[in-house]
Amino acid sequence: MNMEMIEAAALRAMGAVRRTPLLSSPFIDEIAGRRVLVKPECLQETGSFKFRGGWAAVSALSPELRARGVIAYSSGNHAQGVALAARRHGAPAVVIMPSDAPEMKIGNTRALGAEVVLYDRRSGDRDAIGARLCAERGLTLIKPFDDPQVIAGQGTTGIEIAEQAAAAGVTGGDVLVCCGGGGLTAGIALALEARAPGLCARPAEPEGFDDVTRSLVSGAIERNERGDGSLCDAILTPSPGQITFPILRRLCGPGIVVSEDDTLRAMAVAFARLKIVLEPGGAVSLAAALFHPKSIEAETVIVVATGGNVDPLVFRLALDRFGDGS
Amino acid sequence: MNMEMIEAAALRAMGAVRRTPLLSSPFIDEIAGRRVLVKPECLQETGSFKFRGGWAAVSALSPELRARGVIAYSSGNHAQGVALAARRHGAPAVVIMPSDAPEMKIGNTRALGAEVVLYDRRSGDRDAIGARLCAERGLTLIKPFDDPQVIAGQGTTGIEIAEQAAAAGVTGGDVLVCCGGGGLTAGIALALEARAPGLCARPAEPEGFDDVTRSLVSGAIERNERGDGSLCDAILTPSPGQITFPILRRLCGPGIVVSEDDTLRAMAVAFARLKIVLEPGGAVSLAAALFHPKSIEAETVIVVATGGNVDPLVFRLALDRFGDGS
Repeated sequence: MNMEMIEAAALRAMGAVRRTPLLSSPFIDEIAGRRVLVKPECLQETGSFKFRGGWAAVSALSPELRARGVIAYSSGNHAQGVALAARRHGAPAVVIMPSDAPEMKIGNTRALGAEVVLYDRRSGDRDAIGARLCAERGLTLIKPFDDPQVIAGQGTTGIEIAEQAAAAGVTGGDVLVCCGGGGLTAGIALALEARAPGLCARPAEPEGFDDVTRSLVSGAIERNERGDGSLCDAILTPSPGQITFPILRRLCGPGIVVSEDDTLRAMAVAFARLKIVLEPGGAVSLAAALFHPKSIEAETVIVVATGGNVDPLVFRLALDRFGDGS
Repeated sequence: MNMEMIEAAALRAMGAVRRTPLLSSPFIDEIAGRRVLVKPECLQETGSFKFRGGWAAVSALSPELRARGVIAYSSGNHAQGVALAARRHGAPAVVIMPSDAPEMKIGNTRALGAEVVLYDRRSGDRDAIGARLCAERGLTLIKPFDDPQVIAGQGTTGIEIAEQAAAAGVTGGDVLVCCGGGGLTAGIALALEARAPGLCARPAEPEGFDDVTRSLVSGAIERNERGDGSLCDAILTPSPGQITFPILRRLCGPGIVVSEDDTLRAMAVAFARLKIVLEPGGAVSLAAALFHPKSIEAETVIVVATGGNVDPLVFRLALDRFGDGS
């Protein structure tokens, strides 16, 4: 896992993966007490950065493997990213989803061309179903984060940040990243090491799911006690990965942990001041920048807002509570 | 008013005005029955394309005039665009607003550094107040659309569209633009004439406020019967301008008129599929692309989504009625 893989992924992504802009607002700078630049990965096709990793993984396969197809386990953003990347490559995609996943997510994944295989969370064995399908059809498994090609694809975000920060005259500061298993954070950290060494990647996590923050403190992989019970469903991974954690440990600054209230408030601020739609798990980094100013020393902070696949009811909750973005 | 002015405005805007991306979604293509590319001007600083025109007008002033300051009449997007452009140039700005304008808009305009002068809609004479301030202080009036520099600034959107369409392999098709007084539509039309002659600008308007569409049919400037009574407050101008109309007449295709329901539905689609926040007046063009497929012949349609400064209550109305974006 190295910078050359990220550079190769960036070449393969040209014309396929969107280059998201850097947004800002004087109102946000005032709340945060410093300059804030927001990279809205919610504007990526499929509504989250996950399309970058999906594209990198599918495009790296040999034509033979690609023709057999790919498989992913996910009820969320990774599923959609892999499904669309596979469709654009003419590759079959199977996504294994729990049968109680939201109807809309199942429908979206099917609409993006994937074959959805449902299993019962209580009685079904997801891994056994996946292993059987892989054996029968020769499918390639695309893991959500602990996979070098996926990390390389997410790392293309970091190349863009390095270029855009330089264009904005920013050579130093923190880059806050919403962090689940650490694929995006690790990829960005590697790209910044090579291209913008004055910028430091830092994970942002929700309260109760701060496995990466604690792992960075202890120096060993820590796990979350719970597996659900947060609105930030996109980033509730139990622990950092075997590949991602050594990278995070070597390159990242300390994590920042935010409350669910701060996350909803950040969604309302993004609505009012940036005109973007964020899901809770995609707004954690913005919440850290806005409401944890003492955890940050840099004059400028860059926020990677990772996704916008939010249920309308949850979005309305944020607007109802913090609708004027102040 | 010509292409050279637009090119000059684009040069002055470099590094100050945001280059918005082109967004798309397979789900939107499916609803529309053709390829749809969306240019989200809601992502412009101040939340609408109006910052382009404000920047162009303020940056074109001589240092002497700029030091005296600028003045604008507006309770909405133009006010914020001029206020921020003036502040960035170190120029004083006065904005004359009705005293019953929403508290938040008054607050935002003040927060962007403008001096807000309130007047009573019933008893006050806005023009007299403005004329007195101009005479006393030597302020320069920046009109919302019928001003060559403002049109030139809005036209920079068209230069970007021409470049981005070419990069996406699109050489022909319609460019739908939410249209009030026609400043943006005229500027884009001029830029496309010079840089992408296969692309045709077309105004999109709300029902009951289709002055430009009717003017294009009759060949003379037509007026709306009403001045308010639509959620599309940003584009309720009574008629096209003396400068804009001849340009629109020479270069634009027929207008498309959409209902308020279609506009709210388009806002919900933009929420669900593009992860952007649109105000009703900024979603009319998307509504035209999605729900008036028979009014369009081109294989590809480019939609300029002009702004996102929407009251949370109105946004929730769109989500409540059409929240799943389908």
